[in-house]
Amino acid sequence: MPTIKFNSVYLDSSSIVGSKMEKEGPLANCFDILYDDLYCNERTYEKGELHLLKDAFSFTFKKSDYKEKDIGIMFGGDLLNQITSSSYISSLYNIPFVGTFSACSSFALTLGLAASYIESNYVNNAIAFTSSSNATAERQFRYPLEYGVQKKETTTYTVTGASCAILTNSIRDIKVTSFTIGRVIDSGLKDASDMGNIMAISAYDTIKTHFKDMNIDHTYYDLILTGDLSYYGKKTLLNLFKRDNIELDNYDDCGLIIYDRENQKVFAGGSGCACSALVTLGYVKEKLLKREYKKVLIVSTGALLSTTSIGQKETIPSIAHAISLEVY
Amino acid sequence: MPTIKFNSVYLDSSSIVGSKMEKEGPLANCFDILYDDLYCNERTYEKGELHLLKDAFSFTFKKSDYKEKDIGIMFGGDLLNQITSSSYISSLYNIPFVGTFSACSSFALTLGLAASYIESNYVNNAIAFTSSSNATAERQFRYPLEYGVQKKETTTYTVTGASCAILTNSIRDIKVTSFTIGRVIDSGLKDASDMGNIMAISAYDTIKTHFKDMNIDHTYYDLILTGDLSYYGKKTLLNLFKRDNIELDNYDDCGLIIYDRENQKVFAGGSGCACSALVTLGYVKEKLLKREYKKVLIVSTGALLSTTSIGQKETIPSIAHAISLEVY
Repeated sequence: MPTIKFNSVYLDSSSIVGSKMEKEGPLANCFDILYDDLYCNERTYEKGELHLLKDAFSFTFKKSDYKEKDIGIMFGGDLLNQITSSSYISSLYNIPFVGTFSACSSFALTLGLAASYIESNYVNNAIAFTSSSNATAERQFRYPLEYGVQKKETTTYTVTGASCAILTNSIRDIKVTSFTIGRVIDSGLKDASDMGNIMAISAYDTIKTHFKDMNIDHTYYDLILTGDLSYYGKKTLLNLFKRDNIELDNYDDCGLIIYDRENQKVFAGGSGCACSALVTLGYVKEKLLKREYKKVLIVSTGALLSTTSIGQKETIPSIAHAISLEVY
Repeated sequence: MPTIKFNSVYLDSSSIVGSKMEKEGPLANCFDILYDDLYCNERTYEKGELHLLKDAFSFTFKKSDYKEKDIGIMFGGDLLNQITSSSYISSLYNIPFVGTFSACSSFALTLGLAASYIESNYVNNAIAFTSSSNATAERQFRYPLEYGVQKKETTTYTVTGASCAILTNSIRDIKVTSFTIGRVIDSGLKDASDMGNIMAISAYDTIKTHFKDMNIDHTYYDLILTGDLSYYGKKTLLNLFKRDNIELDNYDDCGLIIYDRENQKVFAGGSGCACSALVTLGYVKEKLLKREYKKVLIVSTGALLSTTSIGQKETIPSIAHAISLEVY
């Protein structure tokens, strides 16, 4: 620990779904369905987020031979208070459920936990899922969308989308090879409008730990992706590695891939639980299957704040979990 | 699945701490420290809850030979939005952290996840922790304490306390023998003032699954404990088993053990993440060490609601996870 190596875990069927901004973004072709607004055919934004999860689950099963009874366990998490989106989707499936909260780092965490349960032979197949919605997150963490509150340059735009992935011990093209569980770091930073810079420190810590535990350096990977560090956090992460004389030339951030920052109003980039999930299960998965990339490290990043902690002027701790995907 | 059997996981050092109501309750002697109010020497209730966690961690380490570096991973969760109590306590330890959210069923879930990581040889020693506070929970989920809002008869009183437990693969007196992961059940119920009855259905489902998976019946255990079903939920659970012609005569609820319902103003009983944690690591652990009980099943129960889901008049799904402890 903290890095677990897997010998027999594979990524099988998965689905990603999104909304308007994702439809207008550069990865639109990777999605199973894209809605034209944040309601996604429902009456409330929260039901809209659940609708996306329902779609992601349906497509994942539809694209595979797995039935509900084949899945031994599922791990999920989202951004809403008491992860209600995850609870409601889980109530629709007769599958044991482990609820996680790790803010925007939920994707790598749930994937890693699912993989470790498969590697241990507790189950043959497991689901990892996550979701976020710009509308539900904005009104919970910041202000209702209708207020049109002015944003700071360093603010990110929460991705609206959901993902579902089946991991299995049956041999498939993409292998899940390792999982580095992050520790919580509190650097004393407090600016909830600049979470990229806060989380960059956690990403740096987890990537360094991963390299050390695996006895590799950054050149091992074709691509290293952080979850949602934004334009500013990405710069910070690159600078942190430069201090160690490491030029991270194979690195990018999912929040800068899912949107076209030049032409879409996303401020410093995309963020949210769905950000690293959609980019990994959309863009990265495609590239791996085509063997354009063979080894990718996904480092989902999370800022661990609540409106109460911010209101009480407390610090914002952060965490990052990493998972590696490889093809041969 | 969903029940995992463990061969080499033991409960080692642990600590429970609490506040005024717990001090006035029947289990006061089991605690490492008990405060006289909900602030626990801090300026805010949230800092108070964190203070309890800090104490629980300190006592757990102090009562053992383990150092921070000996712990491979920790699993924690609490009731607050974005589990901030768990994040802040984790930021004080250089240990990989998995954040969970499972409402008041967090205790059995974190214990079970920690045990499964030890059984798989991913780590030798792991921590499971949880906390809840009447003051932080009341103002987040209901109304500020100062309002003195009138309560329904079926309302429960959130326990103020924190727990920390070290699980290990080194042989100790108390063995963690199995872990049944619950599924989310949505019965369509909506009364947030009567969560005991909602969760009773989940407890019933998980206990039945546990018996089936383990090929045992209720007589296998000296004691079966649910987390926080309250006076009313306990009755419901007994009735559900009666329908199956099972007289659950070795059953009680932690929320009815931690407080003296006749003489303390706790309405239908105690509840919260800390409820099953304090009763298990206090009362049950002592009885096991004295061999007064040899086999105990702990079924922590959780109601998966948020103020948003209640405000939108949505249903309240629930979940229950079970863990068994045995001595020889």
